[in-house]
Amino acid sequence: MAIAIISPGRNPSAWIKNMKEIDKEIDIQVFPDIVNKDKITAVMLWQHPKGILHEFPNLKLICSMGAGVDHILSDETIDSSLPITRIVDEKLTFSMTNYCIMGILNFHRRTSRFYQLQKSKVWDMSSPELEVNVGVLGVGELGGDVVEKLQFMNFNVFGYGNSPKENLTYPYFYGDQLDSFLQKVNVLVCLLPLTLKTENFLNIDFFRKCTMGTYLINVARGSHLVEEDLLTAIEEGFISGAMLDVFRKEPLPQDHPFWENEKITLTPHIASVTNPKAAAPQILENYKRMLNNQPLVNLIDRKKGY
Amino acid sequence: MAIAIISPGRNPSAWIKNMKEIDKEIDIQVFPDIVNKDKITAVMLWQHPKGILHEFPNLKLICSMGAGVDHILSDETIDSSLPITRIVDEKLTFSMTNYCIMGILNFHRRTSRFYQLQKSKVWDMSSPELEVNVGVLGVGELGGDVVEKLQFMNFNVFGYGNSPKENLTYPYFYGDQLDSFLQKVNVLVCLLPLTLKTENFLNIDFFRKCTMGTYLINVARGSHLVEEDLLTAIEEGFISGAMLDVFRKEPLPQDHPFWENEKITLTPHIASVTNPKAAAPQILENYKRMLNNQPLVNLIDRKKGY
Repeated sequence: MAIAIISPGRNPSAWIKNMKEIDKEIDIQVFPDIVNKDKITAVMLWQHPKGILHEFPNLKLICSMGAGVDHILSDETIDSSLPITRIVDEKLTFSMTNYCIMGILNFHRRTSRFYQLQKSKVWDMSSPELEVNVGVLGVGELGGDVVEKLQFMNFNVFGYGNSPKENLTYPYFYGDQLDSFLQKVNVLVCLLPLTLKTENFLNIDFFRKCTMGTYLINVARGSHLVEEDLLTAIEEGFISGAMLDVFRKEPLPQDHPFWENEKITLTPHIASVTNPKAAAPQILENYKRMLNNQPLVNLIDRKKGY
Repeated sequence: MAIAIISPGRNPSAWIKNMKEIDKEIDIQVFPDIVNKDKITAVMLWQHPKGILHEFPNLKLICSMGAGVDHILSDETIDSSLPITRIVDEKLTFSMTNYCIMGILNFHRRTSRFYQLQKSKVWDMSSPELEVNVGVLGVGELGGDVVEKLQFMNFNVFGYGNSPKENLTYPYFYGDQLDSFLQKVNVLVCLLPLTLKTENFLNIDFFRKCTMGTYLINVARGSHLVEEDLLTAIEEGFISGAMLDVFRKEPLPQDHPFWENEKITLTPHIASVTNPKAAAPQILENYKRMLNNQPLVNLIDRKKGY
């Protein structure tokens, strides 16, 4: 019995170190140097080569090495009876929430305007704040934390998701209530899971339903956003600017128009990075539970896609 | 009986409007057009000309039009038996806290580094966060709120003040424990009241006790900071950068070195602006209490200076 790390192009040493510290007997093999594929009963994946899991005849568990599982679900060759788990990490949540709040505050307090005023040596006290009503698209582990922190800071916050939710402490919209939701807010944080339903969700039809001048923060996946539609929406004024951490192609190509767009702030997919120290124990826990036929932790629902 | 607004160079109309809405009978006079000085029993002050209050023989109450009272206490000609009140405004607290958290998050998440990377079209995912331990100098109404919000966001926070405090939920240092406090933190938020004790508090001796690379946010008063000492501390590396909203001379003179210093982000005293809609009822309330010999709200302690 062994677990395999399949995460091409990334250094797995921190993962191995953190797993061995908990269980020094564990047999960890690293793709592509896996000697006995029959022995592999669990895999840890981050952007694995599609179609490869068929090589492991005794596979019983698939673990995402991050919060998202779209990189796994998009491999249609994977046996649909195999359980898939994901990482839920406080540190990951902490980073993601801070990134979003930073983006919201910089819009609210007009950071780029004051930066320009400083460069021009102009002392102008007028209009120091923009009123903000924040809408969070996707209120799961991550989006729910953004809402909770913003509420505590006394911001107006609204949530939007796929399905109804009960006992929330904030106004929540779902499904076909999108138009009403978008009319309430002027800052949008996208933390949707990436599924067939949410791919290309942020497109020109969506943007044209937004309050004029809405600010967009996308920290979910590049494929949520139709990138050329964002440029159109900025030109049309529906979107006043955006802070983007994820892109359809990463690294963002040198000739991509986002780099030089003054309305766009971009960061290189660093809003939140999975921390092997926090994540390794979760994978080990599920590996043991699988071996003992116990219920798995942070198991995803394939139908929902998260 | 009348109340006088003495706030030279500022438009008092929002104050008058908000006060008249509550009590349309109230007699409000505006400096310098005060016809019958004998009638004035209360004054509302923001940077009044020093020495002027002697002209009102029946004065019984002094109200600051903002959170600070240093502009009043620095007028040594004022009769020390006169009560002084200040504004405590949720909206003011909301703005101040958001400004501080924005500064902290931009340091923590390296906003200026990522801005430079974007300008150079460089995709560099390394070192996306700096570890931060936040120290708040002055944990009254405003500083206490910054601490509370940061704690809820799961940041490490430490407080420092003049005198001992009990039943706090965070580590607190006071008086001569400054060195120990400064060694715990690498981000400093100055929200001290301005008193004889705290004027020039942020000087080169202070900076040289800081952890190397400490980031400074000053939102209190310009006179807390010895401005040339900050430049020295930045050169010496004790301070890695600063976000400043207040200055010894405002507007900041055109030839001031802060404008062009790349390590300094400056804003034109807009971190928090008193909102007459919230503040006018507080002044009216105290005016009525004074007339009825009732205890005043948000009365300041002249000995403490806040």
